[in-house]
Amino acid sequence: MPILIQKYGGTSVGTPERIRRVAQRVVAARRAGNDVVSVVSAMGHTTDELLALAEAVTHDPRRRHPRELDMLLTAGERMAMALTAMAINDLGEKAISLTGSQAAIITDEAHTGARIEEVRATRVREELAAGRIVIVAGFQGVSRAREVTTLGRGGSDTTAVALAAALHAERCDIYTDVDGVFTADPRRVPDAVLVPEIDYEEMVELASAGAQVLHPRAVEIGARFQVPIRVRSSLRDDHPGTLITRRKRTMERLVLTGLASESGWARIVIRGLPATMAATARVLSAFAAAGVSVDMAGHAERPDGRRELQLTVPEADLERAQEQAAGLLDSLGGERADVMGGLSRVTLVGSGMTGEPGVYARAFEALVAVGIEVYALSSSAITISFLVPQEAEDRTLQALHDAFALAREGI
Amino acid sequence: MPILIQKYGGTSVGTPERIRRVAQRVVAARRAGNDVVSVVSAMGHTTDELLALAEAVTHDPRRRHPRELDMLLTAGERMAMALTAMAINDLGEKAISLTGSQAAIITDEAHTGARIEEVRATRVREELAAGRIVIVAGFQGVSRAREVTTLGRGGSDTTAVALAAALHAERCDIYTDVDGVFTADPRRVPDAVLVPEIDYEEMVELASAGAQVLHPRAVEIGARFQVPIRVRSSLRDDHPGTLITRRKRTMERLVLTGLASESGWARIVIRGLPATMAATARVLSAFAAAGVSVDMAGHAERPDGRRELQLTVPEADLERAQEQAAGLLDSLGGERADVMGGLSRVTLVGSGMTGEPGVYARAFEALVAVGIEVYALSSSAITISFLVPQEAEDRTLQALHDAFALAREGI
Repeated sequence: MPILIQKYGGTSVGTPERIRRVAQRVVAARRAGNDVVSVVSAMGHTTDELLALAEAVTHDPRRRHPRELDMLLTAGERMAMALTAMAINDLGEKAISLTGSQAAIITDEAHTGARIEEVRATRVREELAAGRIVIVAGFQGVSRAREVTTLGRGGSDTTAVALAAALHAERCDIYTDVDGVFTADPRRVPDAVLVPEIDYEEMVELASAGAQVLHPRAVEIGARFQVPIRVRSSLRDDHPGTLITRRKRTMERLVLTGLASESGWARIVIRGLPATMAATARVLSAFAAAGVSVDMAGHAERPDGRRELQLTVPEADLERAQEQAAGLLDSLGGERADVMGGLSRVTLVGSGMTGEPGVYARAFEALVAVGIEVYALSSSAITISFLVPQEAEDRTLQALHDAFALAREGI
Repeated sequence: MPILIQKYGGTSVGTPERIRRVAQRVVAARRAGNDVVSVVSAMGHTTDELLALAEAVTHDPRRRHPRELDMLLTAGERMAMALTAMAINDLGEKAISLTGSQAAIITDEAHTGARIEEVRATRVREELAAGRIVIVAGFQGVSRAREVTTLGRGGSDTTAVALAAALHAERCDIYTDVDGVFTADPRRVPDAVLVPEIDYEEMVELASAGAQVLHPRAVEIGARFQVPIRVRSSLRDDHPGTLITRRKRTMERLVLTGLASESGWARIVIRGLPATMAATARVLSAFAAAGVSVDMAGHAERPDGRRELQLTVPEADLERAQEQAAGLLDSLGGERADVMGGLSRVTLVGSGMTGEPGVYARAFEALVAVGIEVYALSSSAITISFLVPQEAEDRTLQALHDAFALAREGI
């Protein structure tokens, strides 16, 4: 029997009523002739509530008590999976819930942000062979030292795709509250259209660029093990959603897939630094040591031979970035650091951009035409990102969506 | 180093503030030179809330989905133990939390009401040897088939005493919201006094008779493995509480220990049955098959040679008892069944009652003097129970407490 993996997020199992609806969907998949493994997240805001409880007992539990925090947080999916299994049993199918440990989701030892090393799916296979629907707790695993771990952000998506890989599943269906992957966020770009099929690589870029629909970690596992992933609505039965797969694409043709964006970025420009590789490296190392992640780095030589280093950083890291910059100006010699917050990064994703001269030009023309200032740019083989004022984020998305006719041409 | 087991109930770990207070107490015991294992219940009403959640998803989860209900309920202690471990770590001691499964509390397969078969304390011993304070989830265990189970009522007390037995602990301290075991419930009998030391057998009787302070299951394990158990207040540090132990008692002297009571009882009298053992056995078997528990059974022969069977049953079982009685009257031949609800059972516990003729007499005189009607009686070597109207429960307790001068003579 083909094996189908389903993943239901916290909203999908957020109330007893919704859990019963999930159960119906799981049973329907089973009765359609599949062996079904469903991965569930914690109900609604349970994980946040548990975290708040830990913070009421102690300070900074993530850093100071990571092992116990994982023990605490894993209670969340435990509740959801047991309730889901009950609801399925009620519909006349046999279901069994398994913790991350019971399902042998083996991870490294990094509490609160563990990586899956291996899935030993023996127990899951046995339960399937016994005719059971298996409900697996998302987001959690067990280390080789038998300690309970959690996977961090995107954990449940990651559990689902990893299980799909280990079980050689037919497909992994990620149920969510949207219809699938769109050419842009439909709340921001009203004429955005659904993308019926997308490349793993494009999906990794869209997800990394801010598309909330699916975590890039999960897509990367899907790509590595060639697991077809379908993102689909848990609210509608009739909708095929978006299939993420290895797409056979027309040779050499420019294929623009979509746009994603993320606010909360800031820019720091350190002026008058020595124009040496060593000085730039010192800055980047100091930022890294202070835990400041840097995106879209660039520099400019001035006529006086000094250099200006431009770095994009998360707004949340800006204060630490300024402290580091102040110290570096002292030690390296430099003039001052200018900062600007309130920026958004808008990313255009599409295969075949490499060496396509028209793309940059068309994008810039479109943004100039609507009066949007671009503070920084960066690109990869399949992406171009633009740093713009946050208040211009939606207009930037719409302008690029129009310029590349994504509403019509988006696959 | 001597091993000390501590047990904290749901109220003691009911809020972040209280968890921090428990942590201080645990750390104090450690710094006083003990290896400490603390057993915690779920916070406050968590277990009831989880049960309500299950009932919102399905019907009768205890009967229909016992395995999944246990998976759900065990989330409760998991949260409490992780938070407690964090709070202890904060105070500079090393703590580690272990689930019932990790602590190898091996039970039978009876989900939602499992019995402990064995405690394989290897992991707990290793953690103690590594200098850690061990926090163990109460109420939960694991079957030999590696399924998660819960122990039912009194589960956390039972976990604590079973661990104390397996680890050959110096003592098991049960922390609660009262000062210890009293000659009667001080809310009902204002001059009730604390019992500083009590026999295992007497404590089993008091606990079974309605004293809420400790579950009889736990005391029975204590008796079997000779674990000294101390019941003490989690609110006061200075109070020694009550020590439950094998007491060397003065030979042949009547020692009355205390009173306990329980409301919610009813009486059913089946009249005009054949006066045969077979008929009585048929009634008791029918009640048992219908899940009606019977207490204080008695019968009376009538002048016409028929029999009246008097059975005390929990009020909650009364309806089922009446249904059974109706059927039995038909099949056995009989007149009618009379029922009376709203009764309480008051129990006097004390060693050395056997063959002491004055005890019954003194008790009856006392109850007659204050005009209390006794509907049924039963006794064991160390107990006498009286069935009285619920509205007379407190007066019965006070009258017996006075009659036996428990306020002065109670040890």
